[in-house]
Amino acid sequence: MYSFDFQKRVRYGETDQMGFVYYGNYAQYYEIGRVEMLRSLGMTYKYMEEELGIMMPVVSMQVRYLRPATYDQLITIRTTLRELPDTKITFHMELFNEEGKLLNAGQVALKFLDPKTGKTVPTPPELLNKLAPYFETT
Amino acid sequence: MYSFDFQKRVRYGETDQMGFVYYGNYAQYYEIGRVEMLRSLGMTYKYMEEELGIMMPVVSMQVRYLRPATYDQLITIRTTLRELPDTKITFHMELFNEEGKLLNAGQVALKFLDPKTGKTVPTPPELLNKLAPYFETT
Amino acid sequence: MYSFDFQKRVRYGETDQMGFVYYGNYAQYYEIGRVEMLRSLGMTYKYMEEELGIMMPVVSMQVRYLRPATYDQLITIRTTLRELPDTKITFHMELFNEEGKLLNAGQVALKFLDPKTGKTVPTPPELLNKLAPYFETT
Amino acid sequence: MYSFDFQKRVRYGETDQMGFVYYGNYAQYYEIGRVEMLRSLGMTYKYMEEELGIMMPVVSMQVRYLRPATYDQLITIRTTLRELPDTKITFHMELFNEEGKLLNAGQVALKFLDPKTGKTVPTPPELLNKLAPYFETT
Repeated sequence: MYSFDFQKRVRYGETDQMGFVYYGNYAQYYEIGRVEMLRSLGMTYKYMEEELGIMMPVVSMQVRYLRPATYDQLITIRTTLRELPDTKITFHMELFNEEGKLLNAGQVALKFLDPKTGKTVPTPPELLNKLAPYFETT
Repeated sequence: MYSFDFQKRVRYGETDQMGFVYYGNYAQYYEIGRVEMLRSLGMTYKYMEEELGIMMPVVSMQVRYLRPATYDQLITIRTTLRELPDTKITFHMELFNEEGKLLNAGQVALKFLDPKTGKTVPTPPELLNKLAPYFETT
Repeated sequence: MYSFDFQKRVRYGETDQMGFVYYGNYAQYYEIGRVEMLRSLGMTYKYMEEELGIMMPVVSMQVRYLRPATYDQLITIRTTLRELPDTKITFHMELFNEEGKLLNAGQVALKFLDPKTGKTVPTPPELLNKLAPYFETT
Repeated sequence: MYSFDFQKRVRYGETDQMGFVYYGNYAQYYEIGRVEMLRSLGMTYKYMEEELGIMMPVVSMQVRYLRPATYDQLITIRTTLRELPDTKITFHMELFNEEGKLLNAGQVALKFLDPKTGKTVPTPPELLNKLAPYFETT
């Protein structure tokens, strides 16, 4: 298992007239979470796209909204990998407010795609190598 | 059952550098779908908020992404109610491109909330009355 | 001179907690205005990008915000070309609410760019031909 | 004069199919710049809204786009106040990429508004006091 926390502040443009973060904006929070989780491992999306020639389209997302996030709060985005990816990688997401209360929880699955062939491919070995130590079994 | 189709064009600002609509932007398509479905019944969100004093926060969303939507396509947003709402209303969503291919499918559940008490409330009778004819059973 | 009106409804996700459309979201309204203006002439951005190999990055934008737009209003986006474009095209924008009141006014200038050379190029003749009748002088 | 730098990373959802940050998304960067500039002075928008009862609608924005910002770049947002605000406050904005190149420059003017009366009001004294040391003249 590998888990990483990253913080992001709620911006005015993300709220709606209910006074809360618009439900559709959390997808961006989830993107930030998984990108920064990868960066914490020494890997970036940008590198995977530009150097490894891999794209990662999202194949599914689920979100359960429990509490609203409000303007200017510093939100903790927790991103967890529960298992090693194969042709798909699933990020488990939890957002917490400043009091540590769970705001929403979800998961986002992406596949590894070779845009030249349009085919799904296995996890790039470079990424697997960085993840392996956290999933070592005896 | 009640189903309604509405069309929306893909805008440049909705695409990302993969050349497709960003996965997070479909929540706005889903919002458009359910709002226009309600309008087709003679009911608006705005009326429910301002006149009935009801807010409708989203409690969950699921999306399966099958095909990408691309710039300038005219997308058909199909919104379906499969059952009468109670304290919660669940919209089933399907997006189709101009060739009639399914782009993604999902569902969004919202609850009816009285913002004065912070309590969940039943579906406003005015909305139920408009829906009833489509769910009449013998 | 050529002017074109197009309507767009204010969506929930475009409002902020002030209860108005977020100031940053009007850029998307302006995009819609100029794209639909071009379509009304029988020309599309998509065609210019894909068939003519021209990109149109924005070089400047000015906006004066006069009145707020609110949720669910049907906004009229008026896009006006005051002069024939050369290497740059300037769209004058006016947004009106349902009562015909001016909400904001602005202008957006874009240049014609050949992405292969990175150079600015003149207005594609195909577009000029469509515009010429509206700017014919004796 | 008072100037403050803040950094923000370009997110995937902010790019468009041209491969650059969508021109409309910089308004959010500008919001981040001015909010963090105020915070650096010990003042927050949230406090002004909730405690001082002041709203700050944007009255105008100008942007000149010079270079594109690309995915995953760490952008420096420089926000400068050139003069003390009165009933209006004007933020001068400059965005720089990681090489220190100017991406775009603009200015955003906001007014101080009492939402109860709908009237423009002078700069809250609490904010003026925090700014005064940077504008002291002999």
